[in-house]
Amino acid sequence: MTYTDDIAFTFERGAYADHSTPLVRNAWYVAGLAKEISRDIIARRFLGVDVALYRTLAGEPIAVRNRCPHRSFPLAKGRLEGDTLVCGYHGMAFDPSGRCTNMPSMPIVPANANVRSFPLAERGPLVWIWMGNPDLADDSLIPDTSWLNDPAWASVGGSFAMDCDYVSMHENLLDQTHFPFLHPGTVGTVAYARSKLKVRQEGNVVIIDRSLKNSPPPGIYGIPAKIMHKDVDRLSEARFASPAIHTAFAQIIDHAPDDGKPSVYRFNITHLITPESNGRIHYWWFNSRDFAHDDAEINQFMYDASTKAYLEDVDALEAILKVVQTDIEPQFDLNFAPDKPGLMMRSVLYKLAAEEAGYASL
Amino acid sequence: MTYTDDIAFTFERGAYADHSTPLVRNAWYVAGLAKEISRDIIARRFLGVDVALYRTLAGEPIAVRNRCPHRSFPLAKGRLEGDTLVCGYHGMAFDPSGRCTNMPSMPIVPANANVRSFPLAERGPLVWIWMGNPDLADDSLIPDTSWLNDPAWASVGGSFAMDCDYVSMHENLLDQTHFPFLHPGTVGTVAYARSKLKVRQEGNVVIIDRSLKNSPPPGIYGIPAKIMHKDVDRLSEARFASPAIHTAFAQIIDHAPDDGKPSVYRFNITHLITPESNGRIHYWWFNSRDFAHDDAEINQFMYDASTKAYLEDVDALEAILKVVQTDIEPQFDLNFAPDKPGLMMRSVLYKLAAEEAGYASL
Amino acid sequence: MTYTDDIAFTFERGAYADHSTPLVRNAWYVAGLAKEISRDIIARRFLGVDVALYRTLAGEPIAVRNRCPHRSFPLAKGRLEGDTLVCGYHGMAFDPSGRCTNMPSMPIVPANANVRSFPLAERGPLVWIWMGNPDLADDSLIPDTSWLNDPAWASVGGSFAMDCDYVSMHENLLDQTHFPFLHPGTVGTVAYARSKLKVRQEGNVVIIDRSLKNSPPPGIYGIPAKIMHKDVDRLSEARFASPAIHTAFAQIIDHAPDDGKPSVYRFNITHLITPESNGRIHYWWFNSRDFAHDDAEINQFMYDASTKAYLEDVDALEAILKVVQTDIEPQFDLNFAPDKPGLMMRSVLYKLAAEEAGYASL
Repeated sequence: MTYTDDIAFTFERGAYADHSTPLVRNAWYVAGLAKEISRDIIARRFLGVDVALYRTLAGEPIAVRNRCPHRSFPLAKGRLEGDTLVCGYHGMAFDPSGRCTNMPSMPIVPANANVRSFPLAERGPLVWIWMGNPDLADDSLIPDTSWLNDPAWASVGGSFAMDCDYVSMHENLLDQTHFPFLHPGTVGTVAYARSKLKVRQEGNVVIIDRSLKNSPPPGIYGIPAKIMHKDVDRLSEARFASPAIHTAFAQIIDHAPDDGKPSVYRFNITHLITPESNGRIHYWWFNSRDFAHDDAEINQFMYDASTKAYLEDVDALEAILKVVQTDIEPQFDLNFAPDKPGLMMRSVLYKLAAEEAGYASL
Repeated sequence: MTYTDDIAFTFERGAYADHSTPLVRNAWYVAGLAKEISRDIIARRFLGVDVALYRTLAGEPIAVRNRCPHRSFPLAKGRLEGDTLVCGYHGMAFDPSGRCTNMPSMPIVPANANVRSFPLAERGPLVWIWMGNPDLADDSLIPDTSWLNDPAWASVGGSFAMDCDYVSMHENLLDQTHFPFLHPGTVGTVAYARSKLKVRQEGNVVIIDRSLKNSPPPGIYGIPAKIMHKDVDRLSEARFASPAIHTAFAQIIDHAPDDGKPSVYRFNITHLITPESNGRIHYWWFNSRDFAHDDAEINQFMYDASTKAYLEDVDALEAILKVVQTDIEPQFDLNFAPDKPGLMMRSVLYKLAAEEAGYASL
Repeated sequence: MTYTDDIAFTFERGAYADHSTPLVRNAWYVAGLAKEISRDIIARRFLGVDVALYRTLAGEPIAVRNRCPHRSFPLAKGRLEGDTLVCGYHGMAFDPSGRCTNMPSMPIVPANANVRSFPLAERGPLVWIWMGNPDLADDSLIPDTSWLNDPAWASVGGSFAMDCDYVSMHENLLDQTHFPFLHPGTVGTVAYARSKLKVRQEGNVVIIDRSLKNSPPPGIYGIPAKIMHKDVDRLSEARFASPAIHTAFAQIIDHAPDDGKPSVYRFNITHLITPESNGRIHYWWFNSRDFAHDDAEINQFMYDASTKAYLEDVDALEAILKVVQTDIEPQFDLNFAPDKPGLMMRSVLYKLAAEEAGYASL
């Protein structure tokens, strides 16, 4: 279905997640980069819950609630003895599963004393966490980011802590009509913003396909490929894969490549979003390409151009949340046909959150 | 009616506005100085609502809600194209009336899409805004400040942003019994604080008349008039003209003027108060006189003495609001006879707010 | 009763004070050091109420509510005229009992106008205040701290303002099982943490007795006594004497003293705790000893060692309150047998607060 001409497209009220909708808990979220989790215990907040993260001597990442079950002392302020996490207040000790193995003031180990642990899974440069019902923590549900540890791809990446909600972040990622206005210097071209798109939903996944023929490439792709002087075809897919991840796959097709140059350049953009709470998110991004793997100059260009564009998004989304949270006169935002992919995603987030809360989504 | 001896004067509970009473919306408030509103869009908060302010190419001041009706982006972060305000997120464009004239991602202009605009009126150095029901925005209700652009008067002025409520600000302005204690170095004399006053109410306007015969003038009037060595008569009117403005008109009468000097010196003090929200106000003041119009030294004196006194008010009113908001043990403030003008004003503010909320004021 | 082996010890839910329990008001609390209260009026918050503190010309300490009964101006911003406190806003004047003696804008003194005053009592270096029902303010209930002004004792002391609640502070003071973990460098020895203790309750007082024979002394006692090379006996009492005070009395017994040295060294530690509100406390401490009264080096050692240990407590208790207040998933803390003294104290605080609120404690 193409729908940019579909002005009459209307949406029902009330069934779309917004900044105040309860967060979806039954999902794998990124807890951090693999390299961030080490023998030095760190504390992070995910979905409103403080978590302590560390690695065992064998290198396995471990996550437990950052709150001792005895007197609520933050366990990340304690220390590791081998694989055991020892609370800094009374020395209560927990093994990697969260089971208490020692309470120094007690002659025996108290039965049934433990701290909640969270399922973790390491995948390439990422460590994923499951904050929801542990019975549902199925490894096969971990989103695919295989290109991040595939030698066929070269990646650069970065991260932000943002005062915005994951709903507006996902909506922003599914929306390319803002490119020429918010990102005029980087990814935006007016032709692209108006190009036809197809949107489809597969289960809880929302996918946009877009193509643009015989058109100049945007700088962020054309400059590293050194084809800014050419008209090319451009195919892209944007995918809301889960509450935790948005991926964008782009192909630039050069029908008349110069000698020794490829006819197709591929880019994979990975956006990883973990709510700290309603109103604050952890955000990691990677920009991967399938050519010029070892070119430090292109790496630097991709990093700088991406950072510039994402900072514009950060600034916009933080400004919007501030308006929404402080304006005393709430409004129902208007919706237009190009907002359909975002609204499909917001409908998914609303339905998932409503199901977890045990009430029927409308 | 004189009432300073009227000790038994009692007041009913509950019908007086305080810091937490809903703000009166159907009134003209100052949005800013005319010179503050330009081709550079600015954002201000009035009565809890964020407003974007700019001028058309022809110089007309424009105010619209600082929140795009599409995705709540603050419009003041956008840009002007001629008289059109263009949102910085998706390029949605609005004419000065707030009507949408373009949505770039759409092939036609969406019907019925607009941003709320607010009536503005420019009067001399001031731009007034109407935040309430636009059907009631009658220009003839704009408070009189004609002396501010009358060549017979010379004015100095300044402004503050204050963490206090407009109720206590208006009450402070109607109360001159605090002068000798809060402003001992400037406007206060004990004799004046105890001078007889008459208070009357005309509709929603509260007016105090006060006179003091054969008494030394206070420094703020006597020094610029150079008559500190004389006893003079002093007539003054203090007027709660609307929730947005308090005016004070003073005459100093010298019955034996020196050669070439006037027998009457007139001063008009203009206090302009616009709530940002309950608990925070914009405050502009002007001190106007009908003599020595071009005397830079007197201008500086008036500015310095006024600023000193108003800073004492700012400090006191902010301290009071902090007590009221943080003390866990609320109190009913005592009322004395000299508080009658303030209570009459608070009764007006309560009644107006109650009427707007659609319930009967007591 | 000894109970460290009493694993099966269980506690009922709901009858123990925590950070959100209403504060006990009918108790003498420390308002400040005697030397802090002078002819310069100061403002302090006790139990959520702002208080102005000063001394009369004769030196008597006075406390009144820091809120003028007329327009809520903070009286501590006023000034003293002899023994009279004059409000800085309208000059309303109050004698040390809080009775209004003048309202300048009124021809007579208003009847029945006064500001609430609070009973104070000076005891050695401390001034105590009663914030509750004044009819119950019995001087004989002021906790004993007579050693603080007894020449047989030498004292050092300090103070902190802490973002924690008095419940966790008292629980921390009754709990010595955290010493080896939170204070490994100062007061903690593992042997001591596991030493047998006896706990008893006398009315609303909770008392722990502990003894440890033929064991090395902890540095904080052994170093000033210069007996670190010896094994000694150690007797200690820890006492929750009231919501406002915890005292710890320790004796170090050297059965074979060197020539001219005592066989018993006594230490009294005084912890004075006054809630500013739920979640913030004033905390003063004194460390007193009955030997080497004029030894500046020992004074410095006691001050430094105490400050180091108390800062560790401050850090821990503030971290815990932050977890408790921000974590969206509340927990019921686990209780173990060594927590019994703390839970007895929390039961007392809960019962006292419930009685003051007029409902039956369970």
